[in-house]
Amino acid sequence: MLGLKDVSNRVLEARYAVRGPIVRRAQELQKRGKEIIWCNIGNPQALKQEPLTYIRQILSLVEYPDLLNDKHVDEIFPSDVIEKARFIIAHSKHGLGAYTVSQGFEFVRDAVSKFITKRDDITARAEDIYLTDGASQGAQFVLSMLIANPNDGVMIPIPQYPLYSALISLLGGKQVNYFLDEDNDWQLSQASLEQSIKDAKQKGINTKAIVVINPGNPTGAVLDHENIEMIIEFAREHNLSIIADEVYQENIYDNEKKFISFAKVMCELDVRDVSLFSLHSASKGYLGECGQRAGYLEVRNIPTNVNNELLKLRSIGLCSNAAGQIILYLMVNPPKKGDESYELFTKEKSGILNSLKRKAHLLSKGLDSVDGIECKTPSGAMYVFPRIDLPDKKTDSDYCLSLLESTGVCVVPGSGFGQLPGTWHFRATFLPPEDQIKQVVEKIEDFHTKYTNV
Amino acid sequence: MLGLKDVSNRVLEARYAVRGPIVRRAQELQKRGKEIIWCNIGNPQALKQEPLTYIRQILSLVEYPDLLNDKHVDEIFPSDVIEKARFIIAHSKHGLGAYTVSQGFEFVRDAVSKFITKRDDITARAEDIYLTDGASQGAQFVLSMLIANPNDGVMIPIPQYPLYSALISLLGGKQVNYFLDEDNDWQLSQASLEQSIKDAKQKGINTKAIVVINPGNPTGAVLDHENIEMIIEFAREHNLSIIADEVYQENIYDNEKKFISFAKVMCELDVRDVSLFSLHSASKGYLGECGQRAGYLEVRNIPTNVNNELLKLRSIGLCSNAAGQIILYLMVNPPKKGDESYELFTKEKSGILNSLKRKAHLLSKGLDSVDGIECKTPSGAMYVFPRIDLPDKKTDSDYCLSLLESTGVCVVPGSGFGQLPGTWHFRATFLPPEDQIKQVVEKIEDFHTKYTNV
Repeated sequence: MLGLKDVSNRVLEARYAVRGPIVRRAQELQKRGKEIIWCNIGNPQALKQEPLTYIRQILSLVEYPDLLNDKHVDEIFPSDVIEKARFIIAHSKHGLGAYTVSQGFEFVRDAVSKFITKRDDITARAEDIYLTDGASQGAQFVLSMLIANPNDGVMIPIPQYPLYSALISLLGGKQVNYFLDEDNDWQLSQASLEQSIKDAKQKGINTKAIVVINPGNPTGAVLDHENIEMIIEFAREHNLSIIADEVYQENIYDNEKKFISFAKVMCELDVRDVSLFSLHSASKGYLGECGQRAGYLEVRNIPTNVNNELLKLRSIGLCSNAAGQIILYLMVNPPKKGDESYELFTKEKSGILNSLKRKAHLLSKGLDSVDGIECKTPSGAMYVFPRIDLPDKKTDSDYCLSLLESTGVCVVPGSGFGQLPGTWHFRATFLPPEDQIKQVVEKIEDFHTKYTNV
Repeated sequence: MLGLKDVSNRVLEARYAVRGPIVRRAQELQKRGKEIIWCNIGNPQALKQEPLTYIRQILSLVEYPDLLNDKHVDEIFPSDVIEKARFIIAHSKHGLGAYTVSQGFEFVRDAVSKFITKRDDITARAEDIYLTDGASQGAQFVLSMLIANPNDGVMIPIPQYPLYSALISLLGGKQVNYFLDEDNDWQLSQASLEQSIKDAKQKGINTKAIVVINPGNPTGAVLDHENIEMIIEFAREHNLSIIADEVYQENIYDNEKKFISFAKVMCELDVRDVSLFSLHSASKGYLGECGQRAGYLEVRNIPTNVNNELLKLRSIGLCSNAAGQIILYLMVNPPKKGDESYELFTKEKSGILNSLKRKAHLLSKGLDSVDGIECKTPSGAMYVFPRIDLPDKKTDSDYCLSLLESTGVCVVPGSGFGQLPGTWHFRATFLPPEDQIKQVVEKIEDFHTKYTNV
């Protein structure tokens, strides 16, 4: 029989705190009847965010096209929903039950390329787009290609989203940390990047790529133009590919800030010798369709022979789920002004984004007012990442476990994302409903005071 | 910029002929207006198989639950469909838009375990079931765990479904071939297994698992009880885990044969010291819902600490797509006698399976009658794997490419699956509509005669 000794070290060493031991403990407690407030993961619809009506109406018709022939269909669905469903059915050809081509429906990739063009005023091509089961899968494909040897390294921010450290471990590569500057709003500094790659080199690591998460997870920071330019120049100088995780591009809550894509800045600078892999997803933004597993990967400045290898890799898993591909299509192709659904769609969308903004403030300000907790107001994404003072010999894992046991609030220790040694943090999403956010603040305040006064 | 030299050898060396160069060439030809008959891949709904009404009606309601509140809903949907949709919505709790727990919805895993119990008269547990984006993903998880070192080997049948060779390459392990006996209806022989593991040992390979595909892909062979017993004993003796790819379990066309699961035989023999990983899918059978990416992995005789590692690995990609999980639920929970949908469901199901049976005969007998082609009638799965005589210096890849160029029939060369050196084959699926199957036979007959008489 199989034993732990037979399991690959790459698996044994991988860590994914977002669903790690504290979350499993929370699941146990919930089964025993304890009320849990799930702040561990950016899973909007598990926290009462409703799906957009437009998206689900169309999916409903596309899953069961016979419904379009029902005599009541015009009473049930808005005219633009019916029209869009007919368009999708005509273009998907075999419906949702057939494997699509490996990169995904061509009409969806066309729509994604037009979305990029409209967003950034740059050209984009359907053949450079891969539809994926969530952005995670896109990251997996890219890192599978790039990590060729045990001393191949990938730079990741600290703190980071632990998908990246987990994939690097699973693929047998080396994690090369660069530290974000907490005191400077978690921005990147060239000095920190240079230090990081220099240290890696001294350890014999061949650094091949840099991961940038913008807006930041867990930090909530939004990178400015200058920062992005600096990173592109750094990547060029060190011959690194850039993996730009841009899944939170719609989640910006600071009126002074704006999402700028790596693709746009690269085109502006006319940089053609730095390979770029950009990730986007329907799980975040205002759709929050996590369970549908829909994302895309766009590649730029990749020679055709490398793109062919990526295509082969993608083809081994056949294709991403077809319903998810349709959701992605709708994400980049929302109803237009004048369409029957436009008003409801816009109302739902701004309802979600405005509520997120309020909750980002509520949670961060609330926590920041607690003695011993320092919490920045996030400019983007879905999380706060407060810094906490802890008693001697206590770790953030101890803290988060105690918090869970005594209050039912489930957050993830900063160690799961990485942090400057000697500092402690936790990540909490501000997705729960507003009344629950208030409870979370009260519970944490009460807990923190007791915990640190022992 | 990234170059081919930067791409991992594991990726460069992976091959997946089912979507390989010949298929890409077929896509090009189709774009230029050539009519292609797609016999390269088991993709039923791309070849005019209709989805089951019951499945799609329920999905339609579950994607858009508001439809249940429409005053016409009772006129549009059968009562059992409405009832089942309500049940699913109640049990999925957050609908299809939230990440589910990593292993998948508990009520779906419960239903899968009951399905196994009913099928095999053995116990099964929801905690041993992992819902996956198609069976391919389950295979990937298992092999990721098992391939720990470059000299770790996995036994695979020759011919095989090339997912396995591709995954072994991507994970940096060693492929250990065992040959199926073409002259004995592609059954396994103990002598061949023993020879294979002995040869591997001599090469310094540490063989850790054996993959068995039953019913066979591409062979169509259905393993008998004795064969399965033999394999289990062999695995025990050599301390191998068994990966049982059982995705074609519903696709049996020979009245004398019957699908027997590895789990059932293991329980009958009371074997508790051989680890078993069983794969199943909603892509094949009579559902053919390939594009929905729905499958499951069941584990047996796995210690808890190893199961925990598998759970961690699964959690890194978060969860399989939720709509696919629902399809899997419906696959193991079809309408019952007396339900309003029962009659239509049964009619559609038997229509599909009977047609597959007729087409298996049509294609295999047709090809077998061609001079220079020897084609067994498959007992199961969705393919024929005829042996072909070729002129000197011609390979099966040359043959399949010429066939494509001159007739538009797209099949996959035997070399993509592996074959005894000196023999040539191709794999063709018998999924196209019956009138097309006749055309395929005529086209291949005509082509083969010309090709071999040059």
